Amino acid sequence: MHTLRLNDYPIHIGSGQWPQLRALVEALDPSRLLVLCDAHTRIYCLPRLQEELEVPEHQVVTIPAGERHKTLDSCRYIWERMMQLKLDRRALMLNLGGGVVGDMGGLCACLFKRGLPFVQLPTSLLAQVDASVGGKLAIDFASVKNSIGLFANPEAVFIFPGFLATLPERELRSGFAEVIKHALLGDPGHWAELKGLNSLSGLDWPALLVRSLRVKQRIVEEDPREAGPRKLLNFGHTVGHALESAFLLSESPLTHGEAVAIGLVCECYLSHLKVGLSLEVVQEVAGLVRSLYPHRNISNHLLPQLLELMQNDKKNEGGEIRFSLLQAPGQGRYDLPCDRDEIADSLGFYNSHSLSLFS
Amino acid sequence: MHTLRLNDYPIHIGSGQWPQLRALVEALDPSRLLVLCDAHTRIYCLPRLQEELEVPEHQVVTIPAGERHKTLDSCRYIWERMMQLKLDRRALMLNLGGGVVGDMGGLCACLFKRGLPFVQLPTSLLAQVDASVGGKLAIDFASVKNSIGLFANPEAVFIFPGFLATLPERELRSGFAEVIKHALLGDPGHWAELKGLNSLSGLDWPALLVRSLRVKQRIVEEDPREAGPRKLLNFGHTVGHALESAFLLSESPLTHGEAVAIGLVCECYLSHLKVGLSLEVVQEVAGLVRSLYPHRNISNHLLPQLLELMQNDKKNEGGEIRFSLLQAPGQGRYDLPCDRDEIADSLGFYNSHSLSLFS
Repeated sequence: MHTLRLNDYPIHIGSGQWPQLRALVEALDPSRLLVLCDAHTRIYCLPRLQEELEVPEHQVVTIPAGERHKTLDSCRYIWERMMQLKLDRRALMLNLGGGVVGDMGGLCACLFKRGLPFVQLPTSLLAQVDASVGGKLAIDFASVKNSIGLFANPEAVFIFPGFLATLPERELRSGFAEVIKHALLGDPGHWAELKGLNSLSGLDWPALLVRSLRVKQRIVEEDPREAGPRKLLNFGHTVGHALESAFLLSESPLTHGEAVAIGLVCECYLSHLKVGLSLEVVQEVAGLVRSLYPHRNISNHLLPQLLELMQNDKKNEGGEIRFSLLQAPGQGRYDLPCDRDEIADSLGFYNSHSLSLFS
Repeated sequence: MHTLRLNDYPIHIGSGQWPQLRALVEALDPSRLLVLCDAHTRIYCLPRLQEELEVPEHQVVTIPAGERHKTLDSCRYIWERMMQLKLDRRALMLNLGGGVVGDMGGLCACLFKRGLPFVQLPTSLLAQVDASVGGKLAIDFASVKNSIGLFANPEAVFIFPGFLATLPERELRSGFAEVIKHALLGDPGHWAELKGLNSLSGLDWPALLVRSLRVKQRIVEEDPREAGPRKLLNFGHTVGHALESAFLLSESPLTHGEAVAIGLVCECYLSHLKVGLSLEVVQEVAGLVRSLYPHRNISNHLLPQLLELMQNDKKNEGGEIRFSLLQAPGQGRYDLPCDRDEIADSLGFYNSHSLSLFS
């Protein structure tokens, strides 16, 4: 049981935090209480919340599960329900779900009658370890991820590791890619502990979450509006986002984290080429990804599409493809351009290295 | 030529301010320049802006004119155009129009890729004297005015009184109701000058706008989030909004300002009943409204509907109808409940007093 105090709001981590949630609701004394769920969290998480909250009166709004519902049409639906329920600015919204529920629910709360308070209850590992820090709220628009949104803070975030047990194994692994990234970027000691893992069972989640969130907190608080250092958090994501998009309409799409895991291997290889990351660390990262994630061969004929996708990344300027890379665990650098041959080599490295055990 | 310096942004007033606008655009050095117009301002105001701006490259997005287009669908259209134009966060948006263009354009700018800078160029008197101060941005949703939105500030506001000459007489009168309200609430000297007017021609608009905006500035800066004193600006609007809604679907709808002008007369009468506003001032206000605005008889059978509409005002709590009223010019008070009989009497006062000259 632990509380991280960010500049603007607290993150409570641990299964013993229910009394704090009850106390917060009591202190805010909302005119109405609204819980936003998706079709999964309504079944797997809402009953626990209802039991623990001990609040007799509340309303539940449920949206379909999945990133493809993180849209303006879903916002319209949520706002219509909020209007029907006659919520005023003193109502409180609890967002119980993964990144879609948190990002979109937070945005809907901020804009309804120019803003009502909200609390984030992230239920996926990805949302617990990533979306819960940093105040980014958004929906996808015109096929561009998170392109309509704003920066705003919740009253608080409550992370109940028990919800992780409700996740499919594949989704747990997906969130774990951000844990690896945070350790590499900002906590060499944590990286030393993680690098030998070959399974995600039996981990001490509360302790692991606190360490991982501290890295993100430090980076975000240094640069809340992403003017500079926050770009470090993009490590693994330039290649990762391109892979995620390229496979989106394939027969076997990658999860966000599977794509980022491959991206971490490629960008560690680029880090070796450009800023001297030791080959030992590159191989450790490739080894961890190989042991935790299924292998996906990245065919050469995808290369032009992947480069095109990286080119259009919103963080680029002037036609270059820029990366956030790693000099050593704990030492990141950003705004480093890599050329097409280097990027192609990094994908080749992932393909060959990742396969070597099976060939 | 005058500049009001608000806490967060400047308001430049006067026809000599074009060089300042050019200097601001140059200083911001935007990656792209986007002008949002409506069908009217595209014809009547855009050519002047283009001539003065001397910027060779810019894009224009045009929306249909009128409050009924201040919707989520219009936001979707604006965002789609912004996406097609591949705007990034360093683009600048100029909102050239009345309250719809300013409120909705500002909202779209704030949310596109989590926020790009915008400048307000209000062209209607209502937008110049009211919407340009206070940072309220919004659209209408589910038949509720301004129910989806946020508080955010533009880089600057530029008020060119010359645009007022492009307005139909009726729209100019509509905006003038806010000028009367500001003078009554916060500038007794200005009220003394205005009360004898019987026409809006030949006014010194720049000087008048500066005086009127100063009142709003003072009230808004004291209470930006409408926790208390900002409610004073609701003076005339409890009855006014109800009348505007009640006549919305009639054969002859009231403009916002026509409804507020009647609301000011009624709420001055209530001010006499509840907080001792002198009858002399009540009659002066009624006289000014009679000389500037056409008379509308408020039939008794509308009363239940009007009371119902006032009851649902978002500023009420616990079933009472609460007003912002006037003890004397320059001395407002807020959160004052009035009962149904008193409200009915105030409408009767408007009907009889307003007609007396013609009967």
